[in-house]
Amino acid sequence: MIKAGIIGATGYAGAELVRLLLQREDVKIVWYGSHSFAGESFSSLYGNFYGKADAPCLDDDMEKAASVSDVLFTATPQGYCSAHISEEILRKCRVIDFSGDFRFHDVATYEKWYAIKHPAPELCAEAVYGLPEYNRDKIKGARLIANPGCFPTCSFLSIYPLLKAQLINPDSVIIDAKSGTSGAGRSAKIGNLYCEVNENIKAYGVTTHRHTPEIEDQLSQAAGKKIMVNFTPHLVAMMRGILVTAYADLKRDVTYEEVRKAYDDCYAKEKFVRVLPEHRVPETRFVEGSNFADVNFEIDHRTHRIVMMGAIDNLIKGAAGQAMQNMNLLFSLPEDTGLKQLPMIP
Amino acid sequence: MIKAGIIGATGYAGAELVRLLLQREDVKIVWYGSHSFAGESFSSLYGNFYGKADAPCLDDDMEKAASVSDVLFTATPQGYCSAHISEEILRKCRVIDFSGDFRFHDVATYEKWYAIKHPAPELCAEAVYGLPEYNRDKIKGARLIANPGCFPTCSFLSIYPLLKAQLINPDSVIIDAKSGTSGAGRSAKIGNLYCEVNENIKAYGVTTHRHTPEIEDQLSQAAGKKIMVNFTPHLVAMMRGILVTAYADLKRDVTYEEVRKAYDDCYAKEKFVRVLPEHRVPETRFVEGSNFADVNFEIDHRTHRIVMMGAIDNLIKGAAGQAMQNMNLLFSLPEDTGLKQLPMIP
Amino acid sequence: MIKAGIIGATGYAGAELVRLLLQREDVKIVWYGSHSFAGESFSSLYGNFYGKADAPCLDDDMEKAASVSDVLFTATPQGYCSAHISEEILRKCRVIDFSGDFRFHDVATYEKWYAIKHPAPELCAEAVYGLPEYNRDKIKGARLIANPGCFPTCSFLSIYPLLKAQLINPDSVIIDAKSGTSGAGRSAKIGNLYCEVNENIKAYGVTTHRHTPEIEDQLSQAAGKKIMVNFTPHLVAMMRGILVTAYADLKRDVTYEEVRKAYDDCYAKEKFVRVLPEHRVPETRFVEGSNFADVNFEIDHRTHRIVMMGAIDNLIKGAAGQAMQNMNLLFSLPEDTGLKQLPMIP
Amino acid sequence: MIKAGIIGATGYAGAELVRLLLQREDVKIVWYGSHSFAGESFSSLYGNFYGKADAPCLDDDMEKAASVSDVLFTATPQGYCSAHISEEILRKCRVIDFSGDFRFHDVATYEKWYAIKHPAPELCAEAVYGLPEYNRDKIKGARLIANPGCFPTCSFLSIYPLLKAQLINPDSVIIDAKSGTSGAGRSAKIGNLYCEVNENIKAYGVTTHRHTPEIEDQLSQAAGKKIMVNFTPHLVAMMRGILVTAYADLKRDVTYEEVRKAYDDCYAKEKFVRVLPEHRVPETRFVEGSNFADVNFEIDHRTHRIVMMGAIDNLIKGAAGQAMQNMNLLFSLPEDTGLKQLPMIP
Repeated sequence: MIKAGIIGATGYAGAELVRLLLQREDVKIVWYGSHSFAGESFSSLYGNFYGKADAPCLDDDMEKAASVSDVLFTATPQGYCSAHISEEILRKCRVIDFSGDFRFHDVATYEKWYAIKHPAPELCAEAVYGLPEYNRDKIKGARLIANPGCFPTCSFLSIYPLLKAQLINPDSVIIDAKSGTSGAGRSAKIGNLYCEVNENIKAYGVTTHRHTPEIEDQLSQAAGKKIMVNFTPHLVAMMRGILVTAYADLKRDVTYEEVRKAYDDCYAKEKFVRVLPEHRVPETRFVEGSNFADVNFEIDHRTHRIVMMGAIDNLIKGAAGQAMQNMNLLFSLPEDTGLKQLPMIP
Repeated sequence: MIKAGIIGATGYAGAELVRLLLQREDVKIVWYGSHSFAGESFSSLYGNFYGKADAPCLDDDMEKAASVSDVLFTATPQGYCSAHISEEILRKCRVIDFSGDFRFHDVATYEKWYAIKHPAPELCAEAVYGLPEYNRDKIKGARLIANPGCFPTCSFLSIYPLLKAQLINPDSVIIDAKSGTSGAGRSAKIGNLYCEVNENIKAYGVTTHRHTPEIEDQLSQAAGKKIMVNFTPHLVAMMRGILVTAYADLKRDVTYEEVRKAYDDCYAKEKFVRVLPEHRVPETRFVEGSNFADVNFEIDHRTHRIVMMGAIDNLIKGAAGQAMQNMNLLFSLPEDTGLKQLPMIP
Repeated sequence: MIKAGIIGATGYAGAELVRLLLQREDVKIVWYGSHSFAGESFSSLYGNFYGKADAPCLDDDMEKAASVSDVLFTATPQGYCSAHISEEILRKCRVIDFSGDFRFHDVATYEKWYAIKHPAPELCAEAVYGLPEYNRDKIKGARLIANPGCFPTCSFLSIYPLLKAQLINPDSVIIDAKSGTSGAGRSAKIGNLYCEVNENIKAYGVTTHRHTPEIEDQLSQAAGKKIMVNFTPHLVAMMRGILVTAYADLKRDVTYEEVRKAYDDCYAKEKFVRVLPEHRVPETRFVEGSNFADVNFEIDHRTHRIVMMGAIDNLIKGAAGQAMQNMNLLFSLPEDTGLKQLPMIP
Repeated sequence: MIKAGIIGATGYAGAELVRLLLQREDVKIVWYGSHSFAGESFSSLYGNFYGKADAPCLDDDMEKAASVSDVLFTATPQGYCSAHISEEILRKCRVIDFSGDFRFHDVATYEKWYAIKHPAPELCAEAVYGLPEYNRDKIKGARLIANPGCFPTCSFLSIYPLLKAQLINPDSVIIDAKSGTSGAGRSAKIGNLYCEVNENIKAYGVTTHRHTPEIEDQLSQAAGKKIMVNFTPHLVAMMRGILVTAYADLKRDVTYEEVRKAYDDCYAKEKFVRVLPEHRVPETRFVEGSNFADVNFEIDHRTHRIVMMGAIDNLIKGAAGQAMQNMNLLFSLPEDTGLKQLPMIP
């Protein structure tokens, strides 16, 4: 029985992790940690769990939580995990952090985009970027995993095969992304109200979103050269789901089969990445409720560009599901343990 | 390995059954039957199942499907199962019908409200109304199960304990129900378009809805006397979920504890019915994606009435989940086999 | 040119009033009053008004606002208008209050349900309940108008004709109401977030909602006897709209024509109440964006009850539109001045 | 009194035109033309118009309609207007066509992308592309106006100022567009059902959408050279609204002020185009219900690209509103006659 602690269990990503873990018989949640709701029954905050998770929330003390956990998830805002983590904690349990704190090897990039002084720069080199489809082997032995951002996960999985196969010009990548509202978290802000979000679409963080350097960092590693991208996220009137539509210049004329092969080379053996049949577009509803990433592409022979598309459930493959996938790797379990749920429509 | 056939697999209830069955390791779907889409790959119709259910749909021949199935689900419109069922089919496999065809012992009631001549009246007496919380023992030995309607399931579970405990006046029951749009099915009608349903609420079938006699029939059996109710369904701009708000006159002054006891007497041991804590209202989102029925009540001491409330996922406890719960009973499996999914929010 | 001041201009009802007033050429808004946003440009809070209402918000000082206004709207929470109104203000301008403060002649009822000590009980007798279809003549000469609640407006218009015609048993009225989320206001609460409201329906304030005594008060006046009702509001995943489904016992057998006549007697000459053709149900989308109230009914001969239905736009006929209708009466203008917008679908 | 006829009045764009025209006192609708619903009362199809447009629909005979109209709107699919228009009709009344039939001077482009043989190529040169902000003078004297597509309207207004000012590389334009579902029309297709559209986003027509050559055609004229663009529309779970996010390479380093001036040079005097304050993004809700187009931009100094954004209501500025704006020009009326509605939120 794996003992799991969660700091930040009452946010949407934390609660989704609770849901996934509660459905497993080989894991026991030992710490429902919450900054704001300590003392309150978890199911009073999330009525869906009534009868299944009625225990009171505990506080957000990482050290105490680590003492009773085999794995500790920090579904907390940037700056939390890095401020509270310690060598002692890492000796007690594996840590999977949902924030941006340990996603950058280059601390300066983090400090510039996040406008925070990094409290634990010494751990940045050790931390492993937890994208199993790219980094599986490093994840297995890690003590500290930086669970990827939702946009970077979807962007990377959509673009990576063509960068790796050197079919696109690395300097030409433009990513237009769309996200459901759960990505904004469960905080009481006017901008997140039903009447503000519904029947609307808008861009946000144009040219300044913090997932930009994370995407650039990972794509740069994959390409073996420094890459800059345009990344524009949009807020969409839906709860879950991220759709990425990415554009790049083709280096040369390509056929469908060539491009398809580039994707298959990367994903044919993957359990969670589905390369769709020709001309079928990824749709967020077709991955919602699952750990799948659906990807596909269209070649534009007129403009010599390619359109790459990807869809994930931002709370699962973009957060809690990927965290559990990483946990499975850490504990040498089949990677899809507890992650076999099929997407639910309608 | 249980071999399951589905006629009408491509409607929403059928597809939800596919989802639930695919997630089990002890069941194999051997017949994806469809009237309209025979020959087409199932996952081309439901992209969420890509890679998991790519087999072509077969036709809707009940007899052929029964030949290869241990259990046959007919997720078909009224009149279909009753027209095609036969003694021979029932000797081959158990049948669970999603329509109203076999929900009435009194054939005349069916023929009046459905305006159809019943093609197999001789089976009406044998068929068992598949509401496990009320009818569990009869279900276990049945050959033919009439899977209850979504509104009747939610209405009955909300009202039954107070009728049984004789706390309410049986002649005073008024049921105001609200349903998500998946209840209208996957048929291409203008009234079901996004732009017609969204940002709207309306009643429909006022005084004439076919679930009225089904509710009356079951409540009458439970009360031991003939009951008539007002039943008004509403179409709500959401995909899944049924909420029932029912009103009745109290026979006498009651306390919270008395009423609570009536509910607990019925449901304390049930795995899928949750009687909520005092003053917490059922919400459809808190059962969505699960087989749960959440119920609760408020006493109005001013008007000497009681408000009974219940919520289910219409496609699960109101259709496919309850069908699988019935299947589990038929095959002597734990009743919640394959039904342990927790509700998913947001 | 009528000079209009608004206290509470930045809530949803206030902003809707701004929209309606800005579209008139005979009215000038002289005071955008806000407690929380004084000093900020109104259009920075409501981007839809960019270029049309860029003036900074002023504070919420009723006395100062009254000094420059011919009519002053207080779109403020309960307790505000009654605490700040004065004889001096009423000598300067007409006041139309959106809150419950002056809707009750019986101060005790207000104090009991609102749990507030009324600061200006002496004005309760003078204030006129601003439902033009019922109270038109009194409104014309009023200094202080209590603009009705959204649920009471819709409930009263749906039920009143049958009470007046004495076709229903006054003690049997049950009102099941459904409201869009804008009724909850523009306050930053977790319960109003997109991810909490969407894909959900729930009852709230069951047996305790403050609109209950307001409905009872008005219906009692209309019936000439004290009436108590069951009133259950529900929160629906839509932005605007209220739907009322009300039930009552018929005193005797009635025909469609008799009931229809009762409605026509009340509303045939009204500009904003539409009695729909037989069997056509009111839908909130068909009144959205307009000051219309659509009403209709179905007789249930089986149970000897009648189902009364009504739909309004909660922000227009349920708030800002009705306030402007009252303003038109106060200033002896055609009642539909500035209110001729047709509902917008989709 | 202008007599207006509408062929295709029962689609969403047609019905929106009905709404706008009914609110005018100087226009009378003389022909509600419908292919599918001739003989049915218009308000039985659109309940919002009950009491205001109860006349029966007439057929879709352009010639008969033209005989009684001063202006004839054809809100019909591609191929309809061009097949039925004639010199005789054009002598009787002005024609404003909502389809793509007359938007291309180059008939071959139309025939290639629409896969239709053009039935009236001789009128293509005469027809005027009805985008008043670009083509105002030509519109005034026209007999036949090609009302622009929704995506082209929003795309052109967003991008045109920078092409005109020669700040961007014309070969680098990538347009990622998002549309509400009303753009798909009121046809009964499974893909447009509530349960298929809701909680989803997907691209469609990737590299092949028919608005691509229309955008290219207009931008090419504006740039004075042949331009090709990438255009990817997405279907969003909302009813109205188009958002365009366009990307282009900057020709050189630019300042905010320079770019702002380019927009102001084009739009400072326009009544319907609002260039937003710095860093405020266009949102579809802020134009919904109005004829406004909101535009803005962000410079990305890192990648030397610029992000151009625009939002319109697809049924108003993208269809019926723009058609009425064109009608106003044709009849020498103030351009905003009947178009002063402010956007409605929530």
